Amino acid sequence: MGPGDLSKALAPLARKSDPRILVGHETFDDAGVFRVSDDVAIVQTVDFFAPIVDDPYEFGQVAAANALSDVYAMGGTPLTAMAIAAFPTDQLPLDVLTEILRGGQDKVHEAGAYIIGGHTVVDDEIKYGLSVTGRIDPRTMLTNANAVAGDRVVLTKPIGNGILATAIKQGKLDAESAAGIVALMCELNAMASRAALEVGARCATDVTGFGLLGHASHVARASDVMIQIRVADVPVLAGAVDAWRAGARPGGGSRNLDYVQSLVAWGPATDLDRALLTDPQTSGGLLVAVPSHRVGEYLERVPRSVEIGEVLPRGDAAIGLV
Amino acid sequence: MGPGDLSKALAPLARKSDPRILVGHETFDDAGVFRVSDDVAIVQTVDFFAPIVDDPYEFGQVAAANALSDVYAMGGTPLTAMAIAAFPTDQLPLDVLTEILRGGQDKVHEAGAYIIGGHTVVDDEIKYGLSVTGRIDPRTMLTNANAVAGDRVVLTKPIGNGILATAIKQGKLDAESAAGIVALMCELNAMASRAALEVGARCATDVTGFGLLGHASHVARASDVMIQIRVADVPVLAGAVDAWRAGARPGGGSRNLDYVQSLVAWGPATDLDRALLTDPQTSGGLLVAVPSHRVGEYLERVPRSVEIGEVLPRGDAAIGLV
Repeated sequence: MGPGDLSKALAPLARKSDPRILVGHETFDDAGVFRVSDDVAIVQTVDFFAPIVDDPYEFGQVAAANALSDVYAMGGTPLTAMAIAAFPTDQLPLDVLTEILRGGQDKVHEAGAYIIGGHTVVDDEIKYGLSVTGRIDPRTMLTNANAVAGDRVVLTKPIGNGILATAIKQGKLDAESAAGIVALMCELNAMASRAALEVGARCATDVTGFGLLGHASHVARASDVMIQIRVADVPVLAGAVDAWRAGARPGGGSRNLDYVQSLVAWGPATDLDRALLTDPQTSGGLLVAVPSHRVGEYLERVPRSVEIGEVLPRGDAAIGLV
Repeated sequence: MGPGDLSKALAPLARKSDPRILVGHETFDDAGVFRVSDDVAIVQTVDFFAPIVDDPYEFGQVAAANALSDVYAMGGTPLTAMAIAAFPTDQLPLDVLTEILRGGQDKVHEAGAYIIGGHTVVDDEIKYGLSVTGRIDPRTMLTNANAVAGDRVVLTKPIGNGILATAIKQGKLDAESAAGIVALMCELNAMASRAALEVGARCATDVTGFGLLGHASHVARASDVMIQIRVADVPVLAGAVDAWRAGARPGGGSRNLDYVQSLVAWGPATDLDRALLTDPQTSGGLLVAVPSHRVGEYLERVPRSVEIGEVLPRGDAAIGLV
């Protein structure tokens, strides 16, 4: 569901506060955090969606990597997961479901966690994902609200996988390029998360359905800062520009653009830039606010990570593009 | 999804074991349990489904009570929950979704827990539920595998709400009866759970989609015992017999009957008995194996609880009806 509708549906709900709720859903953070003791909190998240790739085993991996990513985005360690699946038992053989579950389970095991249950419903459309519970140190966790002016903004995976997944569905992408993109979506954000903790970062989020600017805007608003992004420095997946020009337009793209329209000082951004920067990602990278004196170290530790901007004091817009 | 298909889909998956996984999904238990330290484990569960009552606020309450019940069935204390929702944004006003979420949230608050996030997808059919994480003491938790010959079998809510929910959908139940059944489905199993721990019970499950016999069969198989149930003693909701005779047959009923067919020594059970005993329940009561010398105390503490049978040594059938 789009961020606008979701906000509208949630707005009338009366919240109840408790000092143990360290992160609730007011700040659009990646996961909720609840303190159990001074140095232990549990972090919990849930995500699931319809297949974005045809191969069921790959889909299971991508969906699991995407769900686990919310825990990594907070600096947590995944412990357990529940599998959530919807499957048309009367239209497809059960081994398709098995392959999806196997892909998800393999990815959860790679994360050092375990699937200890789940819920499966009969449905016309396949859906799969996880609810993940992890452990987190409340003293060092990475939240949307902790960006500080002066931090450097680092992105750990290139954007454009929403456009490219659409091109794959349209049969317009060669098999080799498609395989490369899927492999990147399967990649866990574990190392990006650990490195963020090691260099003393306190703020991160993962780039998923709301696109780079959508998630960056949540950080800007929660931290009460402005995020400046150098458009030319944002890494984009090979082929995404061509695919967009050839008409690959993912469903959520224009909705994401509407959502951030008034929050962004667009500067030099072209229509293509806007499409890429709001492209809904699946299992995208982490967007980390790294203390400036440690940014070199972070970039060295995390392959493919790129510095794309910096955190400025609060300004007229949540995000400034230059 | 039915228990047969689910078992088939899960069977080929290679399991990975870890001593910290205290309850996985091998024993069809209500929730998974993962040990964090000697006296603290986390219990995690997930459940969601399509509306079984028309009123969105009531539906939210029922779905939340049902999901929380899995934590109570293990003897855990719910801490946090993620809301899971599917909603047709183009067909229904958003305030219907708000009411569902409000119902769920109120029930979670009643349980002393908090909703700290969630995931909502656009879908043709409304679905709602929770993934709940709780705290549990691994030394005293209630599992499917701990029933011992000699224990008394106690049920804490009458059965038949699947048949009655079908009658409600068919417009065949008067408003007052319908309201009573919904109120019972909204009732948390918190007290039934706490009392089970207090009388030293070590085995419980909640009666939900697989019906009384389906869930009792999981206990019998996991505990390697036979469960004897006195059919005449099983409490049945007022109106359920009439509704069944008038043709209210819930979808999952016959599937549940197939599932347990060969596991039950049916004894004197009539067709009506079979339908009631396999009626898929929503937010049903706990089925508790209570040490025989404490059963009087349990029945006194938990309103509506009824002793319906006893645990016998392993026999030819998982369940014996008398």
